[in-house]
Amino acid sequence: MHSVKEIAQQAKSAGKTLATLESQKKNAILQLFADKIDGSVAELMKVNSRDVADAVSAALNSALIDRLRLTDAKIHQMADAVRQVSSLPEPVGHVLRHTLLDDGLILRQIAVPYGTVAAIVESRPDAVVQLMSLMMKSSNALIVKAGQEATHTVKLIQRFMHESLLQHGVPCSSVTVVHGREAVAELLKLDSLIDLVIPRGSKELVQYVQRNTRIPVLGHADGICHVYVDTDADLQMATRIIIDAKTQAPSACNAVETVLVHRNALEWIPVLVTALKQCGVRVNGCSQTVAIAGVDCVTLITEDSDWAVEYGELAVAIKIVSDLEAAMAHIRTFGSRHTDAIITANAATAERFLHEVDSANVVHNASTRFSDGYRYGLGAEVGISTGKLPPRGPVGLDGLVTYKWVLCGNGHVSAQYQGVDAKPFKHVPLPLSSPAR
Amino acid sequence: MHSVKEIAQQAKSAGKTLATLESQKKNAILQLFADKIDGSVAELMKVNSRDVADAVSAALNSALIDRLRLTDAKIHQMADAVRQVSSLPEPVGHVLRHTLLDDGLILRQIAVPYGTVAAIVESRPDAVVQLMSLMMKSSNALIVKAGQEATHTVKLIQRFMHESLLQHGVPCSSVTVVHGREAVAELLKLDSLIDLVIPRGSKELVQYVQRNTRIPVLGHADGICHVYVDTDADLQMATRIIIDAKTQAPSACNAVETVLVHRNALEWIPVLVTALKQCGVRVNGCSQTVAIAGVDCVTLITEDSDWAVEYGELAVAIKIVSDLEAAMAHIRTFGSRHTDAIITANAATAERFLHEVDSANVVHNASTRFSDGYRYGLGAEVGISTGKLPPRGPVGLDGLVTYKWVLCGNGHVSAQYQGVDAKPFKHVPLPLSSPAR
Repeated sequence: MHSVKEIAQQAKSAGKTLATLESQKKNAILQLFADKIDGSVAELMKVNSRDVADAVSAALNSALIDRLRLTDAKIHQMADAVRQVSSLPEPVGHVLRHTLLDDGLILRQIAVPYGTVAAIVESRPDAVVQLMSLMMKSSNALIVKAGQEATHTVKLIQRFMHESLLQHGVPCSSVTVVHGREAVAELLKLDSLIDLVIPRGSKELVQYVQRNTRIPVLGHADGICHVYVDTDADLQMATRIIIDAKTQAPSACNAVETVLVHRNALEWIPVLVTALKQCGVRVNGCSQTVAIAGVDCVTLITEDSDWAVEYGELAVAIKIVSDLEAAMAHIRTFGSRHTDAIITANAATAERFLHEVDSANVVHNASTRFSDGYRYGLGAEVGISTGKLPPRGPVGLDGLVTYKWVLCGNGHVSAQYQGVDAKPFKHVPLPLSSPAR
Repeated sequence: MHSVKEIAQQAKSAGKTLATLESQKKNAILQLFADKIDGSVAELMKVNSRDVADAVSAALNSALIDRLRLTDAKIHQMADAVRQVSSLPEPVGHVLRHTLLDDGLILRQIAVPYGTVAAIVESRPDAVVQLMSLMMKSSNALIVKAGQEATHTVKLIQRFMHESLLQHGVPCSSVTVVHGREAVAELLKLDSLIDLVIPRGSKELVQYVQRNTRIPVLGHADGICHVYVDTDADLQMATRIIIDAKTQAPSACNAVETVLVHRNALEWIPVLVTALKQCGVRVNGCSQTVAIAGVDCVTLITEDSDWAVEYGELAVAIKIVSDLEAAMAHIRTFGSRHTDAIITANAATAERFLHEVDSANVVHNASTRFSDGYRYGLGAEVGISTGKLPPRGPVGLDGLVTYKWVLCGNGHVSAQYQGVDAKPFKHVPLPLSSPAR
């Protein structure tokens, strides 16, 4: 058994091999990985049923057990997702900037992998598979700390990946699964070996990671998304979008938590509340909402801090606001800069909202649920970042590479370009190029 | 007098105005700012001489006083630098990705300013002018904490900027200079108001900032740059490049600190040491270097930690290494991921070095001194980042914007695209566009 530090050292070293792998080879590894997954349905189901049985006897909550449990269909979806990643464009090696500084002195800004990524995920086997394939495609070594509940399933998935790597002569240390809570604390200390941490799980996990490491963290603690229904909204559209944004996947981070309604649309509140109730949604609200919809239908929100709650279930909050300004002020105060939407037929109002709301994703006349790497056409995502700096929002392959500056000369010294008789730089843009492999 | 927090609140609010300013207006403000600077040489010299006199009587070190002191030429250079920034391409508003997700459902990834940037700089008035112009051009509000020594000069520069802003109806709170050490600690706490911190100064300052804030930090603590002289190096070229990299600006972060020499080039060591000595460079070295060049010429390095020293003056360290591997291992252990160079005529060796050395800038057969935003053709830079994530290396205007995802539909809900009868996404790329202003 290697220590977490040794694993990270080996991952860093494997990362160098990954960084120079041709696209073809990476894609072949992914194809093989996919074939092993959907060629081993029976074996996967067998080990997974052990994990599920353990989870049931440990009385874990049913939502978690659902996410842990594999089905024939889920296994095929997992394999298809890997194949889809393998078919995405190569993210490494692009020349992003190419400049002739002077004769014989050429600068290239080149897309390169981060190096080693540590991911901390809960029990979803499909999340592990997706991470493994995205990191392989982007040439990053991966250390994934998986939930204890999924031990047997994830071990088998790791074996499939290792077999695929070995068959192509790539070190297994490119992808390692670690277990146990202690591993998290150890990983977070390794800022000289690990280049990025991706925590996927509860708000508490993400905040713990953010507060306890000097490694850059990609993720979001909260998904407190808003839909603002403007005075100029098509209210039927608003109802439809809110129902979708709340009920289509209530535990998703891009589900709506708070609906802000312009006071001119007061009469529509009972319609909305009824529609929500029919979908089994619990409704909380401000005093005005309670007054209109009735105390039987809406629970009064008494504490300001309750507006910053991510329900993550079939529950929503409604607040009446006086205007666009008040809606945006609410979002600024209680939002989490994830995804916020406006429903309005007024183009100027929409423009102001899209422009001024400082969230990774802003939406006009559509559901917040679209903010997702797959839906955005990024192929797949490792998560959604609510930080201000890139990568921001849904992070796909493009967000899993950074760049370096490569300068080649033939004896150039800088003194020539300085002082009274300074030689001028040419700064001629040269053609950009995509990785030819 | 406003508190730092109030200043930051006003900056955040001003940032919204800045974000929508047309290029033309921003450029006009910068032109006016430049005109005021070189139209006020006498006034600038007068206030600056007060600062210089204070610095002299406070017995501040002469290098600092040099950087603080304005001359007629320096003032014109400052103004020209502002004009140059105004002539750079607009960094805000570009559509970086534009996709038709489905009929009527259109996604844009748009370049937007960070919002509010806090910069902590020492006494150089030209650094303050450059920051002000880059932030105006990139539509970021700026709070700059300037060195106490430059108080009068920087106050006048601020007045020029405020007059330029006012003449175009833009709030003065877009750019504010604050003073005093307490201001730094206060700024670092304001992670809900400030989006990026740029510390420019000593290693201690940068490390203090990195350790004491949750705001993203752009910068570098160390500039420990290496030149590796390979067995296949043109040794005359190597001497020329090393002399340039060390002596052209010894205190610059991209100056070389350690020269690594392949053991096959042992005989050249005395040549190099002599050349360095002739330029007034103090030489430290490993025991082999001392043995070859003599204890009179080279001081023995006894502590491993001395290889991680940034001299920042006319001093350099020399180490004999057994091969490329050993050179790269040394850089990995003692380097600061800033700028590292290889001198070799062997293309394969160069390729390995450029590929495997994990620094923001890697250089082949040229001086480390080229790693600089202006020389790279980025127009100007706010600093060099040694972090792994973008912006990495010299950060110009492109590194002062982030992006947001803007999705516009006409009532689209996500449920349609999920499940058994899922509607497929179209994901048709649409034309990209530059800001039309």
